[in-house]
Amino acid sequence: MRIIELKETVTASNDRDAAILRKELTNKGTLLINLMASPGAGKTTLLERTIRDLKDRFNIAVMEADVDSDVDAVRIEKLGAKAVQAHTGGMCHMDAGMTRAALDELGDERFDLVVLENVGNLICPAEFDTGAQKRVMLLSVPEGDDKPLKYPLMFTVSDVLILTKTDVAPYFDFDFEACKRRARGLNPNIEIFEVSAKTGEGFEAWEAWLEKAVRETKEN
Amino acid sequence: MRIIELKETVTASNDRDAAILRKELTNKGTLLINLMASPGAGKTTLLERTIRDLKDRFNIAVMEADVDSDVDAVRIEKLGAKAVQAHTGGMCHMDAGMTRAALDELGDERFDLVVLENVGNLICPAEFDTGAQKRVMLLSVPEGDDKPLKYPLMFTVSDVLILTKTDVAPYFDFDFEACKRRARGLNPNIEIFEVSAKTGEGFEAWEAWLEKAVRETKEN
Repeated sequence: MRIIELKETVTASNDRDAAILRKELTNKGTLLINLMASPGAGKTTLLERTIRDLKDRFNIAVMEADVDSDVDAVRIEKLGAKAVQAHTGGMCHMDAGMTRAALDELGDERFDLVVLENVGNLICPAEFDTGAQKRVMLLSVPEGDDKPLKYPLMFTVSDVLILTKTDVAPYFDFDFEACKRRARGLNPNIEIFEVSAKTGEGFEAWEAWLEKAVRETKEN
Repeated sequence: MRIIELKETVTASNDRDAAILRKELTNKGTLLINLMASPGAGKTTLLERTIRDLKDRFNIAVMEADVDSDVDAVRIEKLGAKAVQAHTGGMCHMDAGMTRAALDELGDERFDLVVLENVGNLICPAEFDTGAQKRVMLLSVPEGDDKPLKYPLMFTVSDVLILTKTDVAPYFDFDFEACKRRARGLNPNIEIFEVSAKTGEGFEAWEAWLEKAVRETKEN
């Protein structure tokens, strides 16, 4: 596992860089997912289970973006998937140039699926196109059902919302219907899944969506 | 309850502005707390219980900073405390100028304690001095005990760490000792409390600290 130190790309044209990167990835048949959520929403835990379930069908790599530490990349490597740890140097998000630098560290191997686990932050990552074809966000039950009201941009730009930690729902006042209604009010096309990485509940539907997205990228 | 729209202060001297504001507040005998945490860590819920317990002894106001919505300020006003809702215009943190603008909205009334509930974000708010005399951060049990490793600056700059939602600890793998050791490794002087806003457990110690800090501000 490699650790790389990144700096924010000095460019006013992040959107253009992101569009170029996205086209290159699609031409290679690689789906890049930009995975975003608050700290502790369960991004790495979701990835661990998803990799275990899909690694025999697809060649998968993970890019872990963090302000510091390498705990997440170490967890991913234990599953046998290729992982690179990107340190953002204090930055609160990844941009297209940083994403390209992290992808370069993965080397020449061809991957069907690369997941960028963005910095734990419900605000800044929503503002920067990384070049990923799909944006997937997590919201965990302990965080509360009011989050679409308070962090609207993240819900607006995401293709998929995964509600995580559903196994602890009995211990929290989380109104699933209210949360979904608020998310769809911001983004009528958002796909919503409910999962528990502890019990495995809901993973079938999420992984079916992911598998379809990987196959569609190859057909493009 | 008022809602104000803020913009980032155009100044290179945030630290100087913060120092001036801090001195003004101390001269007035007002303690300003900068309360920081991830989205959904329980900032508003902690405040609700703290206000209920202390409002007969102190004149308390709350400034709710959010990217959008006014749900938190509405909750605080229901308790009879003065609240102002500050919209950060997409910004991921509060700075000293924004804090001063929000304080101005509270009017001429003298407060013993003003709490700035910062934007839900474990990264950016740590980088900006708001002028508060004390910084208090929350980490909730569902977020995980590895957060000091991944978001070190927040733990480094905070005077107090409150571990919240301890009532759900049986349903999560949260190692309290490991978390405290990691936080103290970054910041040997950090005061640590463990609370459950649901059961009230641990509030006595946290409120004793807060009461002492309010009294010390008056004596300065």
